[in-house]
Amino acid sequence: MSTLNSEKLPRIGVLGGMGPLASAMFMVQLVEATPAAFDRDHFPHTLDSSPQIPDRPTAIAGRGPDPLVEIIEAIKRLEASGASLITMPCNTVHHWYDGIAASTSLPVLHIADAVAECIRSQLPAAKRVGVLGSTVTSKLLVYEKRLGDEWQWVFATDDELTQSVMPGIAAVKAGNLPLGREHFLQAVTNMIQRKVDVVVFACTEIPIVLKAEDVPVPTIDSSLALALHTVKVAQSMRVRKDEAA
Amino acid sequence: MSTLNSEKLPRIGVLGGMGPLASAMFMVQLVEATPAAFDRDHFPHTLDSSPQIPDRPTAIAGRGPDPLVEIIEAIKRLEASGASLITMPCNTVHHWYDGIAASTSLPVLHIADAVAECIRSQLPAAKRVGVLGSTVTSKLLVYEKRLGDEWQWVFATDDELTQSVMPGIAAVKAGNLPLGREHFLQAVTNMIQRKVDVVVFACTEIPIVLKAEDVPVPTIDSSLALALHTVKVAQSMRVRKDEAA
Repeated sequence: MSTLNSEKLPRIGVLGGMGPLASAMFMVQLVEATPAAFDRDHFPHTLDSSPQIPDRPTAIAGRGPDPLVEIIEAIKRLEASGASLITMPCNTVHHWYDGIAASTSLPVLHIADAVAECIRSQLPAAKRVGVLGSTVTSKLLVYEKRLGDEWQWVFATDDELTQSVMPGIAAVKAGNLPLGREHFLQAVTNMIQRKVDVVVFACTEIPIVLKAEDVPVPTIDSSLALALHTVKVAQSMRVRKDEAA
Repeated sequence: MSTLNSEKLPRIGVLGGMGPLASAMFMVQLVEATPAAFDRDHFPHTLDSSPQIPDRPTAIAGRGPDPLVEIIEAIKRLEASGASLITMPCNTVHHWYDGIAASTSLPVLHIADAVAECIRSQLPAAKRVGVLGSTVTSKLLVYEKRLGDEWQWVFATDDELTQSVMPGIAAVKAGNLPLGREHFLQAVTNMIQRKVDVVVFACTEIPIVLKAEDVPVPTIDSSLALALHTVKVAQSMRVRKDEAA
């Protein structure tokens, strides 16, 4: 991508902090996904990392405040920073997608759309898709609700969520990456036994510690998929600006 | 660090985009430098990555616009996001430090202070400090002006800047990390011949491709030093808030 100095590129707004390490690593993926020869070829972006947004699983369990109020405050800060679109490197928060999208006139990307694009292009024959994510993502069907029946969805069981996935997420958030890896390896081993064609790392904490080569079936990193999708959408907004000129 | 839900932590404002990959990797270092057991223990932060800020070496050479105008616009956006302090993971931009600090009532951290803290604590016997940085950082004495004569300063020569350091920075900014590494290895090899006790990676592009184990003398990563310093300052602001309560 080559940029004229006079061209104003769209600013990417990143709603982060859930968790902070996953958000920071997403920023690296976002930059690496951008074709650029110079600093100025990169899209400007603003990361609003707000780790004090109330805990999502606790809210769903009815034991804590609704996070949507503080999420919308963060969206307003991103709007004020000049953002042209919103992207959210956290799968669980997409349970609140409709409320978030309704709060702003900016386009809000959906991580499941990004993953779907990757599956269609990389694994067109895939039928059974394993979604390895948090209890909220799994039980409240964040992917199924967005993408319908294009694929057969496979999730972790209640026991696997309680004993492996959620402890793995907590370990990564606490900075204990080896423990997180151990839990996720157990969870992915169980999921593969249910004959999935692909495993989606549908929690942005997972690819921090688990790589494609750790898993004997194809995998999709939802964080990387979102980075690629975000750059693609930002580029399409740029083209429209060029055409308008 | 443990946090009450009701406690309002200071928000760290990060002036980024110079370059974007170095800024994104700084965010990872910032999160990793924070002692935290849960998301909510992390400081909220806003990264304003604005890669269209006019090129700094070009401005210094009198061949392009002064970057300070757009830098101050970015500082204003960080203020509007609720930032309590400003940190800048780019050494070169510190040439404009006084103008930046004068534009805001927020504390603006200085990357040379962060590096000085690391040298004093890790290498108290060091006398000759090699500052491996951009032409602006080297020739306009960003470190020497800030830190005075506590150490003997050693910089890359004009030839080394032209043939190794600046091409290395450009390569990393263009995403060509192997070429960047090759250039920086040459530059650091030359610098070590001048009997330095420590080499400061005084450009945030350098530690992306060069590690401590690549260099036979002690090194300081200015980006990591700034992350540690930023967390320390944010924690001190937090303590003051506690005492005020």
